[in-house]
Amino acid sequence: MSTTKLISPRKLAGFWELPPEKQILFEEMQEKIKKVFAQNCYSPLDTPVLELAEILLAKSSGEMDKEVYAFTKGDTAMCMRYDLTVPLARFVAANANTLEFPFKRYQIGKNYRGERPQKGRWREFYQCDADVIGSEALSLVADAECVKLFIECFDALGYTSITEISNRNLLFGLIDDCGDNANAEAIIILLDKFDKIGKDNIKLSLKDLGVSEENCEKYISAVSVKGNFEEFKTALSKISNNEIFLKALTELEEVESYLTAFGCDKNRYTFNAGIIRGHNYYTGTVFETFLEGHREFGALGAGGRYENLAGYFTEKKLPGVGMSIGLTRLFDVFDQNGLLPEVKKSNIDLFIIPLGDYTAKCVELCSFFRQNGIKAEVAYDNKSFKNKMKEANRRQVPYVMIVGENEANSGLYVLKNMTSGDQSTLSKEDCLKAIKL
Amino acid sequence: MSTTKLISPRKLAGFWELPPEKQILFEEMQEKIKKVFAQNCYSPLDTPVLELAEILLAKSSGEMDKEVYAFTKGDTAMCMRYDLTVPLARFVAANANTLEFPFKRYQIGKNYRGERPQKGRWREFYQCDADVIGSEALSLVADAECVKLFIECFDALGYTSITEISNRNLLFGLIDDCGDNANAEAIIILLDKFDKIGKDNIKLSLKDLGVSEENCEKYISAVSVKGNFEEFKTALSKISNNEIFLKALTELEEVESYLTAFGCDKNRYTFNAGIIRGHNYYTGTVFETFLEGHREFGALGAGGRYENLAGYFTEKKLPGVGMSIGLTRLFDVFDQNGLLPEVKKSNIDLFIIPLGDYTAKCVELCSFFRQNGIKAEVAYDNKSFKNKMKEANRRQVPYVMIVGENEANSGLYVLKNMTSGDQSTLSKEDCLKAIKL
Repeated sequence: MSTTKLISPRKLAGFWELPPEKQILFEEMQEKIKKVFAQNCYSPLDTPVLELAEILLAKSSGEMDKEVYAFTKGDTAMCMRYDLTVPLARFVAANANTLEFPFKRYQIGKNYRGERPQKGRWREFYQCDADVIGSEALSLVADAECVKLFIECFDALGYTSITEISNRNLLFGLIDDCGDNANAEAIIILLDKFDKIGKDNIKLSLKDLGVSEENCEKYISAVSVKGNFEEFKTALSKISNNEIFLKALTELEEVESYLTAFGCDKNRYTFNAGIIRGHNYYTGTVFETFLEGHREFGALGAGGRYENLAGYFTEKKLPGVGMSIGLTRLFDVFDQNGLLPEVKKSNIDLFIIPLGDYTAKCVELCSFFRQNGIKAEVAYDNKSFKNKMKEANRRQVPYVMIVGENEANSGLYVLKNMTSGDQSTLSKEDCLKAIKL
Repeated sequence: MSTTKLISPRKLAGFWELPPEKQILFEEMQEKIKKVFAQNCYSPLDTPVLELAEILLAKSSGEMDKEVYAFTKGDTAMCMRYDLTVPLARFVAANANTLEFPFKRYQIGKNYRGERPQKGRWREFYQCDADVIGSEALSLVADAECVKLFIECFDALGYTSITEISNRNLLFGLIDDCGDNANAEAIIILLDKFDKIGKDNIKLSLKDLGVSEENCEKYISAVSVKGNFEEFKTALSKISNNEIFLKALTELEEVESYLTAFGCDKNRYTFNAGIIRGHNYYTGTVFETFLEGHREFGALGAGGRYENLAGYFTEKKLPGVGMSIGLTRLFDVFDQNGLLPEVKKSNIDLFIIPLGDYTAKCVELCSFFRQNGIKAEVAYDNKSFKNKMKEANRRQVPYVMIVGENEANSGLYVLKNMTSGDQSTLSKEDCLKAIKL
């Protein structure tokens, strides 16, 4: 090999890869989220990472086309998925005759977007999605359940989230009321930037669209409304009595009643008419989830109601509502901000060091400890005893057991507590007890 | 939407996708395997699905080049991984200075090979890999541990496996002994097909290579040797006393001694000189795992020792040994042969049906049951009571609770056991007790 030119062991730019000690934590987080989904009767789904291009790009905007990893193999045009929703739509449309509705599924999987690499953006990232799909109609209980999933997922992860809820039709109703329907999409997209670019800039841009001073004020006062549902309702009721607007408010009232019925902690959700989910396909309830006290991190999860999941694939009407946690981004942001739990350097509880030719004896002991739930490891490599002790220290292994001639003959082993430095000579059973303490 | 031409909701040919009720089982299997790996001190790793083409194809044969999903985005040539070993090599080479050796990692992930679709072959498939990588040297304890992982993984899944073990150098030694070194690779690849094409065909092909009658007999008798280690050693000792050959035998003896020290059940492994892993990069111990009584399924897992993991990427010598379970193939084969446990149609324990306007009351009850570990679901959609009862039957939900005016007022609910047909009127706490029985 030494004459071959070496290839630099690089990974692709913008791709995510954790060192093992952090990966343990990341997998635990996935497990906790899975448990919440399963306990709420969501079934797992695991769709392929690759889909036919015509499926994945069916409802894509030109924007997405550029980001998607697309290629042709043989004569098949295919893409790597950029979200878990289009594959869900394909799956439900294909299996609509055998699935029971409402169909509740979760999927935790990697998605791919070839965005320009930037801080906090990854080209391969995990999304944790849960969706409820109805046939023809779907109760607003499902919307409330999705908000509840955020609370339970963050509880499971050990963090406090706040989910901010609105309904897109509040703004569509208000736009209708103001007679600005011709510019509805453009206004919605502008208002979605309210938090980012501020009142004055929004106003300038709205006026560029031809929106009147009076209407600008209405839109801006609407998207500024926040609070618990009573406050929210009172403030919004003063702004419009358009039919679509009032229907959206009534829907939110029903969602709130189910949140109460579910017993959701009222400190964990609030209403904010500034939540819009601009470019999205949502058609009713929308929500975003933030870490309490850290709105500056941006939304760590989002979701909402869509009128029809799979209109590109089937004539069957499939309304749905879903929630999604951007787990890679969440982990990354928490990591950058020192909010992750402390990681253990090692997953080893006990390091068994042979002194001399006692490797097989150590293997036997190792097996005994592992069978009893202790992550034991034999230090079988060719290092000196001193270096093995140093390794145990570096790896933060809490216990070391030493096995030489005396120990092998007597069945009594030196067990060293690496934290306290205490050392005792014990039978393997007593070592087990000491480690389990 | 109705005027848009519908796109057929197809998935890519040869891609794997399970219905939710089977996916539950498949995920449980992954969880069980993960637990075994973690208990044996392997750390999780989750490398990207995409790698730079120069990395992934560094040691690829032309064969693999054809199968790989490769493409260029921007000016970067990239591929989807076809196994978990090359990404491991890249990872270990890149992080050699910070990792502790022996480095033990597991990875359960999807791989991609654009093979011609055929029964039992999938273009996207899960592999469950565990590998131990040493620095400069690695004890044969690691080889034994990999064999032990097979036993424990299959135990965890509830099946009985048999792992057949050999060492590639037995044949290389014998070839050396016979003076056939010039044809070593070709002979190895032929002998690997012994089980499939039979003695006579092997002999013809060997003769085509110029192998003498006498040597043909030697090779064929060698690859026919099977049994426990004593039988294996006795039979092979008669065939050659070549140095490489004897060293391989000694190595296997040491592996067997560690298997004994680990306490591995001697019924779960055996020695078979016909195990060769033909095209592979293995350089010492090799093994394949079969389901007991079903050798016709072929190997469900395999593994072995490699002299140097990452020679393409680093000058550091990194010997390793690994094992891999082809979980997608395993699941598929077991499914086709009726060997999977029975799947439950539904993950719902309790179906709560509102009679009249009691959805919020049902949601409240649902929350109570879920908090107490019962997978409860509110039948909130607009079906008739009769149709909801039918749905409960179809979904094989074991309990149904009915909530109407009387129940909401009294706090006593009708609970129906759908298996026995028994019906009682109980408080929610007593319903919980009855369901938990």
